[in-house]
Amino acid sequence: MADTQPPPEQTEPAVIELLGLLAYAELVAFDRMAADARLAPDLTRRAILSEMAGREIDNFRRLADRLRELGTDPEEAMTPFVGPLQDYHAKTEPNDWLEALTKAYIGEGLADDFYREIAGFLQSPDRELVLDVLHESRFEEFSAEEIRAAIAADPKVANRLSMWARRLSGEALSQAQAVAMAHAGLVALVMVGVGDQAASLFKRLTSAHSARMTSVGLNN
Amino acid sequence: MADTQPPPEQTEPAVIELLGLLAYAELVAFDRMAADARLAPDLTRRAILSEMAGREIDNFRRLADRLRELGTDPEEAMTPFVGPLQDYHAKTEPNDWLEALTKAYIGEGLADDFYREIAGFLQSPDRELVLDVLHESRFEEFSAEEIRAAIAADPKVANRLSMWARRLSGEALSQAQAVAMAHAGLVALVMVGVGDQAASLFKRLTSAHSARMTSVGLNN
Repeated sequence: MADTQPPPEQTEPAVIELLGLLAYAELVAFDRMAADARLAPDLTRRAILSEMAGREIDNFRRLADRLRELGTDPEEAMTPFVGPLQDYHAKTEPNDWLEALTKAYIGEGLADDFYREIAGFLQSPDRELVLDVLHESRFEEFSAEEIRAAIAADPKVANRLSMWARRLSGEALSQAQAVAMAHAGLVALVMVGVGDQAASLFKRLTSAHSARMTSVGLNN
Repeated sequence: MADTQPPPEQTEPAVIELLGLLAYAELVAFDRMAADARLAPDLTRRAILSEMAGREIDNFRRLADRLRELGTDPEEAMTPFVGPLQDYHAKTEPNDWLEALTKAYIGEGLADDFYREIAGFLQSPDRELVLDVLHESRFEEFSAEEIRAAIAADPKVANRLSMWARRLSGEALSQAQAVAMAHAGLVALVMVGVGDQAASLFKRLTSAHSARMTSVGLNN
């Protein structure tokens, strides 16, 4: 027993949970971004947000394929995460184009940083898969440019979007807590990986978030 | 003058119009399918319609890139088609999952047949581009299977969906007429290509439409 090697496929329940969470996050992000694209002031910008949504569904497909490869029904793996993620999106429905972009920029940025950290605790090929489905920087750059330009045109916009960004990160954190409470395996995966570095992980996440806020002229 | 060769790039205004029409059709189809995916009875089906929407935005990107290559701003090329296509979609908003799938199956099927015919009148590389952005048959097969299964489970569904399909093709035809009246160049492109074969083109389109209807158990 003691010298039994782990199977070549990494199929711990926590990894399945993580992939299920990511898959549903992509599916619902697709849905919300596609809807938010209607807020765009012109067809060119609408197309860019629609394309961002398109990448989410491509990523969903890769995660769902991997879940099937691991012998798991993607729908089953996603179901536990429907509540918290729907809740997050319902509570952070953007009212206009700038709020939609700020949500894409801040919300996806936070999520990406978190998943990037977690990826470090995974084995191949799941590590590479998770890193691969992170958002393309050209979309991040687009959102950041739009926000900067709006603030340059009207500095009052910064206050409104700063408050909005605080709400986004607050809601994200509270939904993350809900997920963590219901998914001990997932938490254990992170905790074992993080070890005594939890404080520094949290510091990295918050300082990356602050940097993103500052970079587009928003206050923490 | 008489023996001047046409430029290597086929940049007739009618071709730009056609690519602009197709590009906007993809952008709006993305938007509508993404919204319709919410009508799905489960996450698996929702994901499939979301993926169909994802392909539309990929196709949009290719058409927009081609328009830029031809020196045209995609937004400008799409703008004339916003009215008629929004109108078509506003008048054919599905009320449930089966109506959404029937719209995808019948509406996209009709449009694809039409664009396939037009592709024959284009030169390379636009001919290949238009053929390439037609819908993948695996999505058509998925929609057809779902409709057949629903009718098998409850034969009354056939009547309701048959009426819906007639409304879809009626609205599509009336919007196509609106587009044709406003875009003489596009009509000329088709007419020159079709020549005296207009009647047989129309016959091919209607018989393909009938075959699609019959194949899933709907009445013409």
